[in-house]
Amino acid sequence: MEKYQQVIDELIKFRNERDWEQFHDSKNLALAISIEAAELNELFLWKKDNESENVKIDKIKEELADILSFSFLLAEKHNLDIFEIVLEKIKRNGEKYPVEKAKGTAKKYDEL
Amino acid sequence: MEKYQQVIDELIKFRNERDWEQFHDSKNLALAISIEAAELNELFLWKKDNESENVKIDKIKEELADILSFSFLLAEKHNLDIFEIVLEKIKRNGEKYPVEKAKGTAKKYDEL
Amino acid sequence: MEKYQQVIDELIKFRNERDWEQFHDSKNLALAISIEAAELNELFLWKKDNESENVKIDKIKEELADILSFSFLLAEKHNLDIFEIVLEKIKRNGEKYPVEKAKGTAKKYDEL
Amino acid sequence: MEKYQQVIDELIKFRNERDWEQFHDSKNLALAISIEAAELNELFLWKKDNESENVKIDKIKEELADILSFSFLLAEKHNLDIFEIVLEKIKRNGEKYPVEKAKGTAKKYDEL
Repeated sequence: MEKYQQVIDELIKFRNERDWEQFHDSKNLALAISIEAAELNELFLWKKDNESENVKIDKIKEELADILSFSFLLAEKHNLDIFEIVLEKIKRNGEKYPVEKAKGTAKKYDEL
Repeated sequence: MEKYQQVIDELIKFRNERDWEQFHDSKNLALAISIEAAELNELFLWKKDNESENVKIDKIKEELADILSFSFLLAEKHNLDIFEIVLEKIKRNGEKYPVEKAKGTAKKYDEL
Repeated sequence: MEKYQQVIDELIKFRNERDWEQFHDSKNLALAISIEAAELNELFLWKKDNESENVKIDKIKEELADILSFSFLLAEKHNLDIFEIVLEKIKRNGEKYPVEKAKGTAKKYDEL
Repeated sequence: MEKYQQVIDELIKFRNERDWEQFHDSKNLALAISIEAAELNELFLWKKDNESENVKIDKIKEELADILSFSFLLAEKHNLDIFEIVLEKIKRNGEKYPVEKAKGTAKKYDEL
């Protein structure tokens, strides 16, 4: 069995055992992703560039796992294949950020 | 080849062709996740419960793909297995949210 | 003395007594606003429309105070008059959202 | 007339002319603050410490004005005095962050 499917199955089992699907509309799942993302960011708050890699890996793990969990649940709700949608996005980004213009600069595509 | 590895390889190829690794410290990757999460949330802003599922799937796809891309890059940077960290988190959450207490309620674990 | 000036003075006194100005670059202040905003949002997570006004006012107060504090500090850093910038924005929004087009709809200006 | 009251009056006039109060429940206002905060943060994305103050002031102004507008509307909805709640929070923070422990460190209160 593929690993991703196993993870999705565990997430859904966890959710269903607690009868939580009633709370998991798309809007609230999106909000949950955003709240977990803020918790990840809090690990880096007030850090200077040269301290940005000193954050405890255990904390990064936890917050990233939360972001991924809610992202997977939102993908599953809409029957999205997380790998396909990323591959498609990379392709679209290739058009927005052609190598010759985007190389070495962090500018947004509309400023290139 | 596993699908996840293929996606990671594409993300890194895309990044390296543009010489963008210099921008991808952990703090900025975390910030990027959070900004993409806000763009996902914007799709649902001002929507009532009964409109929350009317959002165009193409937009959800795009924003979710962005969140996943930066999450995968952050995981890769720290050699984290995205599936393992989610499985571990589900286990820990099982202790924080025991079925008999958490069933049918959206309360946070410290209020159960 | 104007009330806003008094608040700013207290915020700066608090910051300076702790020697925290060194951490308060614009990027980190912006990040702090966003983290506090997520804490405010967490109060409403998983709530349905009809429960959205049941959140304890004391918690809203606290999180809103945090958002305002960091917003005031960022404004002060850049010598921005918080009242003037809001009045200017209202004017600009009036052009983006003319009454006859925007009335009764939550659409974004580029979809009107 | 006090400046803050004038701003609130303008915000409410703007909202009422467009019949937007129906969208401004607390949950959506909080979400709006958070989305505007992310737009503010986007101005600093990928910036290093030494570039963090190079962001165009006009953009900071606009995003900060949006954050403040929705914060004022949320405060007004709950009859909160924005100055009082910040002053109260400063007092509470003084207890969480006593000068002798917090001076010169960006640690969170539970790690002091």
